[in-house]
Amino acid sequence: MGVYHSEVSIRTSGQGTLEITDKARNAVRESGFKEGLVTVFCRHTSCSLVLMENADPSARRDLEDYLNRLVPENDPHFTHTYEGPDDMPSHIKMALTRSSETIPFSSGSLRLGTWQGVFLWEHRAAPHSRSIVLTVVGE
Amino acid sequence: MGVYHSEVSIRTSGQGTLEITDKARNAVRESGFKEGLVTVFCRHTSCSLVLMENADPSARRDLEDYLNRLVPENDPHFTHTYEGPDDMPSHIKMALTRSSETIPFSSGSLRLGTWQGVFLWEHRAAPHSRSIVLTVVGE
Amino acid sequence: MGVYHSEVSIRTSGQGTLEITDKARNAVRESGFKEGLVTVFCRHTSCSLVLMENADPSARRDLEDYLNRLVPENDPHFTHTYEGPDDMPSHIKMALTRSSETIPFSSGSLRLGTWQGVFLWEHRAAPHSRSIVLTVVGE
Repeated sequence: MGVYHSEVSIRTSGQGTLEITDKARNAVRESGFKEGLVTVFCRHTSCSLVLMENADPSARRDLEDYLNRLVPENDPHFTHTYEGPDDMPSHIKMALTRSSETIPFSSGSLRLGTWQGVFLWEHRAAPHSRSIVLTVVGE
Repeated sequence: MGVYHSEVSIRTSGQGTLEITDKARNAVRESGFKEGLVTVFCRHTSCSLVLMENADPSARRDLEDYLNRLVPENDPHFTHTYEGPDDMPSHIKMALTRSSETIPFSSGSLRLGTWQGVFLWEHRAAPHSRSIVLTVVGE
Repeated sequence: MGVYHSEVSIRTSGQGTLEITDKARNAVRESGFKEGLVTVFCRHTSCSLVLMENADPSARRDLEDYLNRLVPENDPHFTHTYEGPDDMPSHIKMALTRSSETIPFSSGSLRLGTWQGVFLWEHRAAPHSRSIVLTVVGE
């Protein structure tokens, strides 16, 4: 048993979901472990993670549009707005989704479902560099 | 220290919460470990997991009814609808809840709160067979 | 490799977010492990956890106010109301946020982002004593 960490920097192109399943696969391969768990951890409070269908992009577009309707910009109740109209909605969207995802692997392969991918979800309007820590605990 | 995986198939009867706490208990017992963490992982994007009160079923019914009002079917904005009106809502409900739950155990017993149970939450209208991976990391 | 558990009792002062990052730091230090993961686990279904910005309190106030608008008290659909108008909203808010957070650490330090803190989110109106289990898996 052991622990293996890696950290990757991901450049987003503004709001949207970006598949990072390969980053989790790479971390497991680099660790050399065959059985265990990989935890994907997002070091930010204005972007988040989600496990979502990676086959049909229309599902991810509908999900994103829904979240934009649920947490609209320019809500007159917001006071934390000095970074712009997407500032406070980005924190709320993060809190309603996930900051980490933990995925089992066996024989060196992620046990994701057939259509399941790991996505970084950028909630800010502008492109950002995002740091993701991948921690593999296994044997 | 070691890793133990098991995978269970659960037949749902359409939309609703189904208690699977025993699956997590069984995985810990089968692992033989006394101290550690069990991760319950849902291999689907149209159902999810939640830790919820297991005493009074009215709390789970209210939770489910609330989520149905928050993410209604037949939203005219949805484009990803070819599997029916419950298709896109099921993905959104999954994203707003959890794909995995990680629970500590000591002396071989889950450290859940008194009223806390692990629930599989089917978001599709029709019955489905769902695969859940249980991974125990412990000693 | 090993497992270290600790459990802390936290007194909340009614609805709101309370920073508990130090509890996670303490657990890692007490474990003596240098590399691994710490899982913060909330043993309740009417409070939850979130990783949120810990610099400007206005972001947390806006987040809390948003969640109060999203899940209002006295919704006439609620039937599970015998503990008061904050009973059912507290369960829903828990389900929409998180029951556990898993955070990597290296060289004995949490790898949180610069502005990221761990918060216990009390959803009940009255003060409560809350039990949080911190489990460190590491080496």
